[in-house]
Amino acid sequence: MKHGRIFKNGVIQAVTENNGQLDLGNNCLVNEEQASWLPPVEPGTVFALGLNYADHASELDFKAPDKPLVFLKGGNAFTGHRAQTRRPGDATYMHYECELAVVIGKSGKNISRDSAYNHVAGYTIGNDYAIRDYLENFYRPNLRVKNRDFCTPIGPWLVDRDDIQDPMNLTLRTYVNGEKTQEGSTSDMIFDIPFLIEYLSEFMTLNPGDIILTGTPKGLADVKAGDEVITEIEGIGQLINTIVDDETWFENN
Amino acid sequence: MKHGRIFKNGVIQAVTENNGQLDLGNNCLVNEEQASWLPPVEPGTVFALGLNYADHASELDFKAPDKPLVFLKGGNAFTGHRAQTRRPGDATYMHYECELAVVIGKSGKNISRDSAYNHVAGYTIGNDYAIRDYLENFYRPNLRVKNRDFCTPIGPWLVDRDDIQDPMNLTLRTYVNGEKTQEGSTSDMIFDIPFLIEYLSEFMTLNPGDIILTGTPKGLADVKAGDEVITEIEGIGQLINTIVDDETWFENN
Repeated sequence: MKHGRIFKNGVIQAVTENNGQLDLGNNCLVNEEQASWLPPVEPGTVFALGLNYADHASELDFKAPDKPLVFLKGGNAFTGHRAQTRRPGDATYMHYECELAVVIGKSGKNISRDSAYNHVAGYTIGNDYAIRDYLENFYRPNLRVKNRDFCTPIGPWLVDRDDIQDPMNLTLRTYVNGEKTQEGSTSDMIFDIPFLIEYLSEFMTLNPGDIILTGTPKGLADVKAGDEVITEIEGIGQLINTIVDDETWFENN
Repeated sequence: MKHGRIFKNGVIQAVTENNGQLDLGNNCLVNEEQASWLPPVEPGTVFALGLNYADHASELDFKAPDKPLVFLKGGNAFTGHRAQTRRPGDATYMHYECELAVVIGKSGKNISRDSAYNHVAGYTIGNDYAIRDYLENFYRPNLRVKNRDFCTPIGPWLVDRDDIQDPMNLTLRTYVNGEKTQEGSTSDMIFDIPFLIEYLSEFMTLNPGDIILTGTPKGLADVKAGDEVITEIEGIGQLINTIVDDETWFENN
């Protein structure tokens, strides 16, 4: 089953997917284009992987890491499906990152690789935009690269774990204004989902609502104000986001 | 006024300070040694500064940064006054960090230096422990250094902003088993509170409950299981924490 959250009639309402529409229950259906989407779960602690696809590490001229490179995202960074993300006027390079987002459903610490999937509620899509300009800071990746307001759309759907037969073999694609610019497979991850859950839970408790953004494959490109960016993962769906300039941003936010 | 939060009778209760005791209202007083303390506010996004005291940067053999080095803390990292923090059995160096914690009280973005203090609710104490062993990771400081469960006690009190005449001129001290091991002054910060609020709010919205851990002065030392660590800030109070080994930790958590 696919689960979403929308703002409607003054409150946040839970919906499920019903033939492409949003089902509020009580025979009430909403068109997905007309809904005001939130991320499908309220994000708890959000872990993001850097350089977790070998082809992408090579694209950035880094050697593949021997330990996961994990950083945290702040709550201010998230937004839902069909939202706007700002390209700051002074940025010279801003790229999307299509990522499989693993949502934790059951608390645990010291979770073994073998039982890792028992702690997964399901999967959604994250687009972990980066402003490449500020990568040079000693603390990497710093907040100006990865933690601006609403710079990380998540959604639209949380797909139940058992509906995805093999999360380590899904095609990821990004389209900018309809043109495919990124394609890869979760099978190319350096550290797979069970490894990441085992690794993180060795020194931190994982809790329901925590999310692991598992990194992005090769194929990054600069995006400009006005671009529509669709990040897509096989079996999970398409997450739509629009890039806006400072002026539009400050009018709307 | 000083505000705290304790667990009592199955719920989280707000308390104020009354001659060293905790006042629940209705003439109900609790001894501070007997209270089950939580952090004085529910932490929102928590920003932590690295190398924000010139003397400490020099102690670690780094040159002082020309931009703030800021990283995020996850919600799992926090605990209250009089709690236990684990020293992992395989760690070779774990140090305390006494830090002035600035608690945001009013939302804002693009906050100017001049109006920065209007967005501050008050101040408390943070002890941002670090496991030094893992500093070498490319993403700095990585989560094994700075984000283990309950590795950052906060509290005991949130002191109202207007009760602290000059937050940029407070003495910080740390005592390990009664012996003073760290002493410095917030006047030695490289980036002061108004600067940090201006800097962060330029690309992120600051919200009530967000906390800025402003860094620590010189005087770090390794702590061992059994140590009682008191971090103290002039006018704000004393935050007490005990270091425990793996065995005690896993019995209690």
